[in-house]
Amino acid sequence: MKKFLLLVAIVATSFHAYSQTIDQKVEALLAKMTLEEKAGQMTQISVEAFLKTTNGVLNEPHEFDMAKLELAIKKYKVGSILNVGGNAQTVEVWRKRIETIQQLALQERLKIPVLYGVDAIRGNNYTLNSVMFPQQIAQAASFNPAMAKKAAAVTAYETRASFIPWNFSPVLDLGRQPVWPRIWETYGEDPYLVAEMGKAVVQGYQGDDVVTDKYHVAACLKHYMGYSMPLSGHDRTPAWIPERELREYFLPQFAAAVKAGAKSVMVNSAEINGVPVHANKHILTDILKGELGFKGLVVSDWQDIQYLYQRHRVAKDNKEAVMIAINAGIDMSMVPTDFTFTEALIALAKEGKIPMTRIDDAVRRILRVKYETGLFENPVGAAKDYPLFNSAAHNQLNYDLTAECITLLKNTNNILPLAQGKKILVTGPSANSMRSLNGGWSRIWQGTTSDETEKEKNTILEAVQHVFGAGNVEYSAGADFDKVLDVRDAVAKAANVDVIVLCIGETSYTETPGNIGDLRISDAQIELAKALAGTGKPIVYVLTEGRPRIISAIEPLSAAVIHAYLAGNEGGNVIADVLAGKVNPSGKLPYTYPRSTNSLVNYYHKYTETLQFDETAGYNPQWEFGFGLSYTQFGYTNLKLSSATLKDGAPITVTVDVTNTGKVAGKETVLMYVSDEVASITPEVKRLRGFEKIELQPGQMKTVTFKIDKDRLSFINGQLQRVTEAGDFTMSVGGLKAGFKY
Amino acid sequence: MKKFLLLVAIVATSFHAYSQTIDQKVEALLAKMTLEEKAGQMTQISVEAFLKTTNGVLNEPHEFDMAKLELAIKKYKVGSILNVGGNAQTVEVWRKRIETIQQLALQERLKIPVLYGVDAIRGNNYTLNSVMFPQQIAQAASFNPAMAKKAAAVTAYETRASFIPWNFSPVLDLGRQPVWPRIWETYGEDPYLVAEMGKAVVQGYQGDDVVTDKYHVAACLKHYMGYSMPLSGHDRTPAWIPERELREYFLPQFAAAVKAGAKSVMVNSAEINGVPVHANKHILTDILKGELGFKGLVVSDWQDIQYLYQRHRVAKDNKEAVMIAINAGIDMSMVPTDFTFTEALIALAKEGKIPMTRIDDAVRRILRVKYETGLFENPVGAAKDYPLFNSAAHNQLNYDLTAECITLLKNTNNILPLAQGKKILVTGPSANSMRSLNGGWSRIWQGTTSDETEKEKNTILEAVQHVFGAGNVEYSAGADFDKVLDVRDAVAKAANVDVIVLCIGETSYTETPGNIGDLRISDAQIELAKALAGTGKPIVYVLTEGRPRIISAIEPLSAAVIHAYLAGNEGGNVIADVLAGKVNPSGKLPYTYPRSTNSLVNYYHKYTETLQFDETAGYNPQWEFGFGLSYTQFGYTNLKLSSATLKDGAPITVTVDVTNTGKVAGKETVLMYVSDEVASITPEVKRLRGFEKIELQPGQMKTVTFKIDKDRLSFINGQLQRVTEAGDFTMSVGGLKAGFKY
Repeated sequence: MKKFLLLVAIVATSFHAYSQTIDQKVEALLAKMTLEEKAGQMTQISVEAFLKTTNGVLNEPHEFDMAKLELAIKKYKVGSILNVGGNAQTVEVWRKRIETIQQLALQERLKIPVLYGVDAIRGNNYTLNSVMFPQQIAQAASFNPAMAKKAAAVTAYETRASFIPWNFSPVLDLGRQPVWPRIWETYGEDPYLVAEMGKAVVQGYQGDDVVTDKYHVAACLKHYMGYSMPLSGHDRTPAWIPERELREYFLPQFAAAVKAGAKSVMVNSAEINGVPVHANKHILTDILKGELGFKGLVVSDWQDIQYLYQRHRVAKDNKEAVMIAINAGIDMSMVPTDFTFTEALIALAKEGKIPMTRIDDAVRRILRVKYETGLFENPVGAAKDYPLFNSAAHNQLNYDLTAECITLLKNTNNILPLAQGKKILVTGPSANSMRSLNGGWSRIWQGTTSDETEKEKNTILEAVQHVFGAGNVEYSAGADFDKVLDVRDAVAKAANVDVIVLCIGETSYTETPGNIGDLRISDAQIELAKALAGTGKPIVYVLTEGRPRIISAIEPLSAAVIHAYLAGNEGGNVIADVLAGKVNPSGKLPYTYPRSTNSLVNYYHKYTETLQFDETAGYNPQWEFGFGLSYTQFGYTNLKLSSATLKDGAPITVTVDVTNTGKVAGKETVLMYVSDEVASITPEVKRLRGFEKIELQPGQMKTVTFKIDKDRLSFINGQLQRVTEAGDFTMSVGGLKAGFKY
Repeated sequence: MKKFLLLVAIVATSFHAYSQTIDQKVEALLAKMTLEEKAGQMTQISVEAFLKTTNGVLNEPHEFDMAKLELAIKKYKVGSILNVGGNAQTVEVWRKRIETIQQLALQERLKIPVLYGVDAIRGNNYTLNSVMFPQQIAQAASFNPAMAKKAAAVTAYETRASFIPWNFSPVLDLGRQPVWPRIWETYGEDPYLVAEMGKAVVQGYQGDDVVTDKYHVAACLKHYMGYSMPLSGHDRTPAWIPERELREYFLPQFAAAVKAGAKSVMVNSAEINGVPVHANKHILTDILKGELGFKGLVVSDWQDIQYLYQRHRVAKDNKEAVMIAINAGIDMSMVPTDFTFTEALIALAKEGKIPMTRIDDAVRRILRVKYETGLFENPVGAAKDYPLFNSAAHNQLNYDLTAECITLLKNTNNILPLAQGKKILVTGPSANSMRSLNGGWSRIWQGTTSDETEKEKNTILEAVQHVFGAGNVEYSAGADFDKVLDVRDAVAKAANVDVIVLCIGETSYTETPGNIGDLRISDAQIELAKALAGTGKPIVYVLTEGRPRIISAIEPLSAAVIHAYLAGNEGGNVIADVLAGKVNPSGKLPYTYPRSTNSLVNYYHKYTETLQFDETAGYNPQWEFGFGLSYTQFGYTNLKLSSATLKDGAPITVTVDVTNTGKVAGKETVLMYVSDEVASITPEVKRLRGFEKIELQPGQMKTVTFKIDKDRLSFINGQLQRVTEAGDFTMSVGGLKAGFKY
């Protein structure tokens, strides 16, 4: 016992000592800083403000206008720079960029390195030739946090290969509003799934140590919080989220990722309940820094302090906006292209309108991240340390992850997989498009250049040609997203084939430009599908889209439906292999796929939302959250609970036997739902409380185990407390049910 | 001065004395009551529980099963009965019904009359041959509270003619969710308009005295509160409304109507923020009975206490549901068909789980309404007192009100009005339908019988035949709402005419059965419109619909659009007279008419909702709130403010000159909007702060005056306080603008 205590004491002391080291360094540096230097640390400028242009167009490759960069660093003491400034650059250009910046920064009095941040959303997309993984929504469909963590580690590696230490990722917004153009940037509609994915990915980005090594980056949780459910469905527009619902559905995933050590948080650009979150002290300071104990830095989103007066009109001018935002708890302003923030901040501090304690708190947080990302020791990296950039191993991981994401939604009469030798017509607007496979956040913000930049990768058409043989594959575009093209050509070619692979969905978009007025898939694609259906040939839909575009008008015309989301650079290859049966699909929907434009109800709805179950109103989605088929079948038996009563401190152990009853190997995500039968807050019909993905050979059985403790059943009550109320619960796994009490 | 004080003293004393008289009577009666008698007063049963049936179908005309009625009144001491029990009955059946009930009630120990309540929604619709006015949404389009008050007085008269003293009307829900199937029961999307209409209608129902005379009824404000904005758009499903927004947008109209003396309130059947409103003590007791000082009775909606356990699952059984609801502040339970409530209430009181003080408070409120509706003196009426039931005068008022509701949305090249002698094709599913003109809450809940019961009234087709001469009018149904009929016949007949009047919209529905999955107008109607457009003949759309069904796909095919809402029994006549120019339309939209299914943004949106203004996303409705054309034109000049600075206690007087610059007489609603330029809560782009409807002869000018005081500019801040913040404001009237400061 003594030995044990001693050990605890040693560990505690060394942790404390270590922790004091960084804190002491921060305090020592802070003590030397002038107000102007502090204000500079709190300023983040976008790199295009410093780049040379010719006739108003950025030089390619990008080059610094050194006078502008020096003004920022020497005069304004700018502490952070972000963004690519347009098109993705080579890894060499990136390294040079960071070296140039840090060289200047280190010439300054206090030698504080600049913290450079980028949106390396799913791979280090702003560096050419980096691996581009599936977008978050597709990764969520894998229900495989361990694999997402591996991909995040690769992203971190390839980002550090560009000498960039800070990644504005992951998005932990709750993707339950399908019209919202950023739903594909989320991990879907379930708070538990989002939290599990989020924790894993933060660990993948940051590694296991407080101080990241040269292969890891600081993560940035965004967009804290409540961003994802605007009333209008449009980006950056007002949401109404009562605090109870905010704490029940939107906060837990941020809390989990903060607990996992996330070093930074980016703020929701929109307003909740009439207050822009950039002006919301309750959310930024009381909850995040207080309740959650977040010690990292809080950065604004793009221009969002300026927008407080320009768009939201809660401030009369920039100075008032800065005062409101900094006092609310923002530590760093993504200004983005001038020094108005810095100047206003200095003036406000001198006038006493922002307390120096608040500024010191902000700078402390920023400096801590700089120490924790190792920038003081290694402000730039060494090229030789990154031999695996865009390596075969990294690309293989991309393929493997993508193979777990693709979701088979329909497979009438087991038309899939297609035997070798089948004649196939590949058609539709996304059939031959790297842009549709990748979506936004690619080599440029809006994803418009992927057909050019990713031309070495395979589109769906190219991959199908490789897998089935070019001689077996016909191609006709048939339609663009917004207009039909030569439908007659597509119909004519269909006459010669056994099956039609119709690739439909969306073109790329990111953020506000992706706003739409109608969630239905476009009329041109509906027309093409109907024309092809007229041929009588079986049609396999491949959906390449960032949100669940409503296809109820044409779903009955399909024989099979493959949901590819935005599958990334290996998407074409994996889809072709799914068609051929080389990959057995194992993705499950991370959101509800709706049937009707004005009936957008998610799976964890209330009982009152099921009252009218008809074709369109009530809860009758096209496909449910968690739905996904396989080329094999899984049988669930023997659901057992270790006790019929849950007691505090004594979790119930749940076991269920899952057997591959089909003929091929497959992976299955076992989803455990719990229903609270009666509660002081109307209970949802069910909530996901656990999941595990397993692989089974034909005939193989595995026993899957879950633990249910009191916390797992808790919810936020009317007094905003997290509680577990006594009563009856029902658990369901794979169609089996069991009741228990707490 | 002394004399004045004396007068005040006398008035105060007599008011006090009078008021004491009712209070004293209530207290005296209450003191005599047993717990069982009190529980009976709090019980409301639907009349069909007491009606005779043959083979499971109600006898027509309705007859009491006296044993059942006696059980309710003698054994359970039931204090209130509601509803028609199926089809509307004659006024004579109603009188007999009430007489029978009161005769029984007055045989009881304490001789407490039964309070009978019905949904006399827009006229005493459940009594055959009563006047059926336009539905509330259409009345809102009149922007004429004075005329709505007159119609309410007629409704009260005709309801009392049936000896019924209590009307479950008006609906004060905010109609800003166009998918919601009850938006036609509201006064539209603007809180100020709803409040002005609501106050007027409460006064129309109740009259000017605290004790209603034999021509007035007790009003019932519903559905308190926050019912109208479900997340899913579907009836009785969960809403998320933060308390700030609840107080800003949903509470003020109830507060205004409570202040106007409304005697009862019915509760929202749905949940807000996870709590069913029937279980919400904060909303029912703290806000309504506390802050608003409401002294009337709070009645549940249909079965809603039982639904607390059956649907909402916040109670484990009926008894717990009764405990929660009564303790939350419900005074009377619309049970509706058994005595489970009464028995549970008695048991809970005996167990001390509902305090007797709460029960006494409830009974006091119920008895007060019985005294204030004069039931103790006149438990039934006298038939001879109601000679104006369904009189020419009442029907003329209906026509006049309807004429102010109909809204002209488009009139290309002044195609309307149509000259006499024009050949007209009348077509479309609502062309020859009293059901579509009236909608729900007609002679039966779902409005399905109106073609039979209202056959003496004119459909649009019949009225057009009368006005233009049968020989000039062709008819072809063309389509039903959900399927095309003989489109070729319609197209063929169009060849012979000058203009097509295409009547489209919705069939009748009420509440949950009206849920839809897609706000677009039905495919069959789109197909008919497109086919008719192919003829090249100009088309006038007449929209008969309870909500703004999206017509953007066919709006460009129309030459003119008349929005008739659910215009009631005079709808056909008025529409024909609008087509002929005998009525100059003066209605204005009481809601935003959206262009796209997933872009439902109301007029008082925030600035951030206008960021993307394109065909579908952002704020780009088909027609704006307040929009409506006339056959004449109105010019606005000379906007003047009495001061450029608003001071406390010194309202600004706003004047504007409005001139009829066209060739025919017309009515114009002058709408005054104010924009708060900067505020601590993101300000809306504008809010309606005043309106006045005027009539102008050609060339005539009138000066319209508004007062703006501090309260008119107030809003609910982040601390839930109503405040007016200093700063800049902009007022706009008829396209003119003026700035001022507070």
